[in-house]
Amino acid sequence: MMPLSRRDMAERDACDPLRTARNAFSLPPGVIYLDGNSLGPPTGMTRARITHTVEHEWGRSLVRGWNVHDWIGLPQRVAAKIAPLIGASPDEIVVADSTTVNLFKLACGALALRPDRRVILTEAGNFPTDLYVLQGLVQASAGRLDLRVLARDKILEGLDDQVALLALTHSHYKTAALWPLTQLTQKAQAVGALTLWDLSHSAGALEIDLAGARADFAVGCGYKYLNGGPGAPSFAFAASRHHGLLEQPIWGWMGHAEPFAFVDAFSPAPGVARLLSGTPPVLALSALDAALDVFAEVDMAVVAAKAQDLVDVLIRLIQTRCAGHGLTLTTSERREGRGSHVAFTHPQGYGLMRALIARGVIGDFRAPDVIRFGLTPLYLGFTEVWDAVEVLREVLETGAFAQDDDSTRQRVT
Amino acid sequence: MMPLSRRDMAERDACDPLRTARNAFSLPPGVIYLDGNSLGPPTGMTRARITHTVEHEWGRSLVRGWNVHDWIGLPQRVAAKIAPLIGASPDEIVVADSTTVNLFKLACGALALRPDRRVILTEAGNFPTDLYVLQGLVQASAGRLDLRVLARDKILEGLDDQVALLALTHSHYKTAALWPLTQLTQKAQAVGALTLWDLSHSAGALEIDLAGARADFAVGCGYKYLNGGPGAPSFAFAASRHHGLLEQPIWGWMGHAEPFAFVDAFSPAPGVARLLSGTPPVLALSALDAALDVFAEVDMAVVAAKAQDLVDVLIRLIQTRCAGHGLTLTTSERREGRGSHVAFTHPQGYGLMRALIARGVIGDFRAPDVIRFGLTPLYLGFTEVWDAVEVLREVLETGAFAQDDDSTRQRVT
Repeated sequence: MMPLSRRDMAERDACDPLRTARNAFSLPPGVIYLDGNSLGPPTGMTRARITHTVEHEWGRSLVRGWNVHDWIGLPQRVAAKIAPLIGASPDEIVVADSTTVNLFKLACGALALRPDRRVILTEAGNFPTDLYVLQGLVQASAGRLDLRVLARDKILEGLDDQVALLALTHSHYKTAALWPLTQLTQKAQAVGALTLWDLSHSAGALEIDLAGARADFAVGCGYKYLNGGPGAPSFAFAASRHHGLLEQPIWGWMGHAEPFAFVDAFSPAPGVARLLSGTPPVLALSALDAALDVFAEVDMAVVAAKAQDLVDVLIRLIQTRCAGHGLTLTTSERREGRGSHVAFTHPQGYGLMRALIARGVIGDFRAPDVIRFGLTPLYLGFTEVWDAVEVLREVLETGAFAQDDDSTRQRVT
Repeated sequence: MMPLSRRDMAERDACDPLRTARNAFSLPPGVIYLDGNSLGPPTGMTRARITHTVEHEWGRSLVRGWNVHDWIGLPQRVAAKIAPLIGASPDEIVVADSTTVNLFKLACGALALRPDRRVILTEAGNFPTDLYVLQGLVQASAGRLDLRVLARDKILEGLDDQVALLALTHSHYKTAALWPLTQLTQKAQAVGALTLWDLSHSAGALEIDLAGARADFAVGCGYKYLNGGPGAPSFAFAASRHHGLLEQPIWGWMGHAEPFAFVDAFSPAPGVARLLSGTPPVLALSALDAALDVFAEVDMAVVAAKAQDLVDVLIRLIQTRCAGHGLTLTTSERREGRGSHVAFTHPQGYGLMRALIARGVIGDFRAPDVIRFGLTPLYLGFTEVWDAVEVLREVLETGAFAQDDDSTRQRVT
């Protein structure tokens, strides 16, 4: 049984190997931020970089910036910083568009590699945009494709030789439940299916080894654990063995073999750059580029271990200090079975989270009754977790949340 | 014949009704910027807004920014500022994704409204990404669709009752040649075709009346005359009469009728919001939002008239002062036949443009032999145009460009 006093927490913080990473961030005073799984905060380097990009690069170089500052190379430069976080080679990733658009491109691309199969398999209750993208593809196929949406515990049974594509989210956005990525990829490939992993809720917080898993395709979010800023561009991964045959449907000039030849006929770029479509979003890419520098200083094994330590502490503290108040844990108590956030249900979850936020403890709420706490190892200390649970305990014991329950809903994941 | 001395130009600048708009911009010293048709510069308000968004909104509100600062409403708020520039209603536009992705969405959506027709008609030498998007759709259709790519002077003949979609760029990226938008839209509709206009090289510099033209669909670029920053989000227009039946293929949570209900089944938003897919790019949208404020202070008729005056002056000055040096005008001399930039061909165009840029006159080069000068009425003065032509004359007369001709290419449109 781990020691759980506030002093114990302070001792853990004092010897935290990531404490220098914490200094890269400056969170607002009075806030305990348990929502970095939804939107990461800016680092000092990110703030400085955005100012530099606007004032110096855009403001002074103007259009010359495409060459002078190699803006055109940003999708691949940023990708090279994400590659080691997910066990990929830099030439297997691009950074562009939104997660939704990248899901669309890669799902289309994967399905075209299995023209004789008609089933896309995914999980009921997957993140909505993942489900919606797949539903749109089935609709557009005019009967050629079927979407097989199964409960989590039925996915393995549903994985048969009709399946063209298994599309799953690595860590579930509500419960943090983690699919064993390597194992599922192997099982999919054993029946001849391809895999598309959504790493949005795991990249930057867990150790991920796409190469070791022989994963086919993956996408992920730039604004959660990667701290790239609200609505940051997304990353798209395609294993190099697929590059020769991979096509994606949104043919654009940035995915052309010679974008600046301005020729009339499309000819896809030879490698992963064929996943690009439009002009790179330079301001947003620059923010993400700078945000990723904090990862260069840390070992992902240390980051992932601390994430699970923080999750363990939060769960244990809530179980011991907030018992009997109607909170039900829906996240796994096994370290290897979860991502880096924790979810509880509570009948008045919405009012409860509002009361916490009003007291500076920022987590979030997901309809109908889920409260989530993100445990972000780069900038969160153990003492903060202890203090957050103390605030939760006070709110629960005083019933200060009941009157806050109205129908307004907190919004973005 | 207009008077063309430098003093005449100074007099025009002194009574320029847009001179207060010019003060919103602060271009670098020593630069005459004739490439705002490719990348507009930041205004002071844009610079301040980006800092505010990063420091105050993202840095302090963190995830609460989605509610507190209504980030989620940005695609529609920014759209409402673009609407009057193109003669649209605010509820007919969204701002999201890249121009390429929006072309893809709207072309798909339009084609689905004409299921019994198989032809997409466009112009040879259209901007590459426009051609590539359409080629990708034809490829994905597996034989259902044909792409009819015709020379400019054959487009009207090619517009028959097999055409589902006429997709044209309003002002041509090289020559600035302008399609008569209303007339072409009418002719297309007369044969039962739909229209998709790319306004990238005209929105913000010309008067555009999509409602008056009864245009069906349009897209445009945020980083050219709208000054939203490199790779800024694009706008997508769909006439409200199409909203009921319009579908686009990239189904995502932001295009859902209830994005925050987190339900498994997609149900498109009732209006133009169904064109949205992924999470809004907040930093980039905020920059564009601020950049558009300069348009609130000006009359687009005045902007468009000054644009054509600047174009007239540049053409006349080059014709009179740079004659006999191998420059061939490829832009129309008629005000109503062109956009807001001017193109000449020159056998050593690349070296010539490099020599101009080295002397602070920034235009751009398009392979194989085109030099372009953008005449942006919001921040360009007549005196600057005069001075730019004087630099051009000197370069041509001294032959200072010949040795600059190497194979490196300037890049982005």
